[in-house]
Amino acid sequence: MRRMTTLRTIEWISESPPALIPGHVRLIDQTQLPETLAYLDTADVEVLREAIRMLRVRGAPAIGIAAAMGVAAAAQAVLPASREAVLAAADAAAARLAGARPTAVNLFWALERMQRLARTCDAPTAQALAERLAREACAVRDEDAAMCRAIGGHGLPLLRDGCTVLTHCNAGGLATAEFGTALAPVYAAAEQGLSVRVFADETRPLLQGSRLTAWELMQAGIPVTVITDGMAAQVMKEGRIDAVLVGADRIAANGDAANKIGTYGTAVLARHHRIPFYVLAPTSTIDLRTPGGDGIPIEERDREEVIRGFGRLTAPESVAVYSPAFDVTPAPLVTAIVCEKGIVRPPYEEALRLVAERRPRPIPPTTGAPPAR
Amino acid sequence: MRRMTTLRTIEWISESPPALIPGHVRLIDQTQLPETLAYLDTADVEVLREAIRMLRVRGAPAIGIAAAMGVAAAAQAVLPASREAVLAAADAAAARLAGARPTAVNLFWALERMQRLARTCDAPTAQALAERLAREACAVRDEDAAMCRAIGGHGLPLLRDGCTVLTHCNAGGLATAEFGTALAPVYAAAEQGLSVRVFADETRPLLQGSRLTAWELMQAGIPVTVITDGMAAQVMKEGRIDAVLVGADRIAANGDAANKIGTYGTAVLARHHRIPFYVLAPTSTIDLRTPGGDGIPIEERDREEVIRGFGRLTAPESVAVYSPAFDVTPAPLVTAIVCEKGIVRPPYEEALRLVAERRPRPIPPTTGAPPAR
Repeated sequence: MRRMTTLRTIEWISESPPALIPGHVRLIDQTQLPETLAYLDTADVEVLREAIRMLRVRGAPAIGIAAAMGVAAAAQAVLPASREAVLAAADAAAARLAGARPTAVNLFWALERMQRLARTCDAPTAQALAERLAREACAVRDEDAAMCRAIGGHGLPLLRDGCTVLTHCNAGGLATAEFGTALAPVYAAAEQGLSVRVFADETRPLLQGSRLTAWELMQAGIPVTVITDGMAAQVMKEGRIDAVLVGADRIAANGDAANKIGTYGTAVLARHHRIPFYVLAPTSTIDLRTPGGDGIPIEERDREEVIRGFGRLTAPESVAVYSPAFDVTPAPLVTAIVCEKGIVRPPYEEALRLVAERRPRPIPPTTGAPPAR
Repeated sequence: MRRMTTLRTIEWISESPPALIPGHVRLIDQTQLPETLAYLDTADVEVLREAIRMLRVRGAPAIGIAAAMGVAAAAQAVLPASREAVLAAADAAAARLAGARPTAVNLFWALERMQRLARTCDAPTAQALAERLAREACAVRDEDAAMCRAIGGHGLPLLRDGCTVLTHCNAGGLATAEFGTALAPVYAAAEQGLSVRVFADETRPLLQGSRLTAWELMQAGIPVTVITDGMAAQVMKEGRIDAVLVGADRIAANGDAANKIGTYGTAVLARHHRIPFYVLAPTSTIDLRTPGGDGIPIEERDREEVIRGFGRLTAPESVAVYSPAFDVTPAPLVTAIVCEKGIVRPPYEEALRLVAERRPRPIPPTTGAPPAR
């Protein structure tokens, strides 16, 4: 069994270990891929907010990690200070970060977790409270890494040696702490020595598929072929695809799944070609407060991303553009939902409630090193 | 009723009217749209071949016109010469142009028409033969313009006032002599004072939808909204689309229709959303010698178009790419085929044979002016 190493998309860098603070966030600036592997180092909430908004860090789990680390960074920034000042700084940071993007439920989940901890933590001093917040943010990352591996393990039996999967957007290591969600079974299969090939939809407008998914799979030595989004139907028709694996930004209580625009169409095509369509996401993505997909807000993004995305005007300057960032795949098109606790199959309502409400097993917080295996 | 004027995508420019020769081809270089409206003037077969191959002129009908004019240009180029030398030049040009692109049947149809004329024409001199070939090429253009208007007329009842259609790629005036095929009913509706809105798939990799369809509709004052290809399913789901209109590069005897990559997926999506899906094309697109879609050769295009299409690298340099230029929509997904002779509905086999074999009414050749109405 070969050991897969994936890049560290986002991590907390301590400046005087073993204490976590002072420290800062280091993340891969994904807008510069695949041309340049550049890191952004910052402890500034506004810089992190901009990084989330501009998709320098993206993918629901990675956004959650960035937000949690942003709260920790804001808390340490006011030191030395009163305990109340640290709490206020954490709350203010959470409020700023919550507005960065509207769809990914992990963002709100991570912020609430940080705020809950801040309010209930019995750390006696401001310094200890800030340290505890940084530890919690690192725990969010480490738990995500472990969850991704668990998703990979649960998803692995869905693949067979020699199979080919199609994925849309990037729900790989760049979108999470390590293994990714949609790509986790692919990495897990590679670790087992199985041959799995990937077709990556380029995923317009921001090309996360061709820029990011292709890049990270090549880094890992996994065969990947890029196609434009409009080619997916043809590739399916040619019998080349055994399964579709996608991530999710939010899963409603009934199993409707919001993900990158184009996912819904891919699900319709998969159904037409009788190809299983799997959604892979941690349970933090499940939003039991939203009964169905109609209740998921869909962010509309800037027209410039569509008409001038790559350094050249690709449509008349003044043309009307419609650019929803996400779509919702109705549960009946989803063959199964794979989360870190196992595979959820229809009917989803009861099953999702059970997995989402079951408490995750506690993972000891660390300094950001990979979890013990 | 307002009179729609569309651009002259391709025409024959006579240098000493009323004679057609000497003359040359003038075409809009579509690779420069939407930024620049530039014309290419040439009488050189190799330049025309390159223009077809590089999609400076594209769209099955326009390619057919360009090829016919290329044969005429080659014939005049050898003058003064023997009649045999003109014939040989026409044949050599046809052989060169036939290799420019493999899928569009109009290319071969136009070349065969020119060669048949050359072989059977009773023009007494080499000069008269070349003049006759130029007249035939102009007839190909004029007939196409008339056919497009006829397609628009037949397709008009499929639309209602206030409706919205989705189209893929560009099967508009830029792809033909005037009205286009897929867009012909839209222009016809506008002439009637009806309000029709268009959603244009941008159509990766070469963005004919956002660069060309959006541009020509805006020129004509018709409301158009650009979306990425992956957004079509969402737009359909939102109930915004009343019909899908697409062109075709080749229609097999059974009604299977080859068109720009992405069309097949759009047809599957239309069926899923119970939206009628219409293929609009002249009967020259119908290839009775090809029984079904499996027999239509699908051109595979250069990977650079996918990974460096916008002036910036959008995927890892060395990534594998699959880039079929066309796909085939099986006849069962096609609600109706609209040609210049009327609307053909399933079952297609018999109906297509009848319309394809019925001789078109002769249209008097002109110097390239719009046909009399």
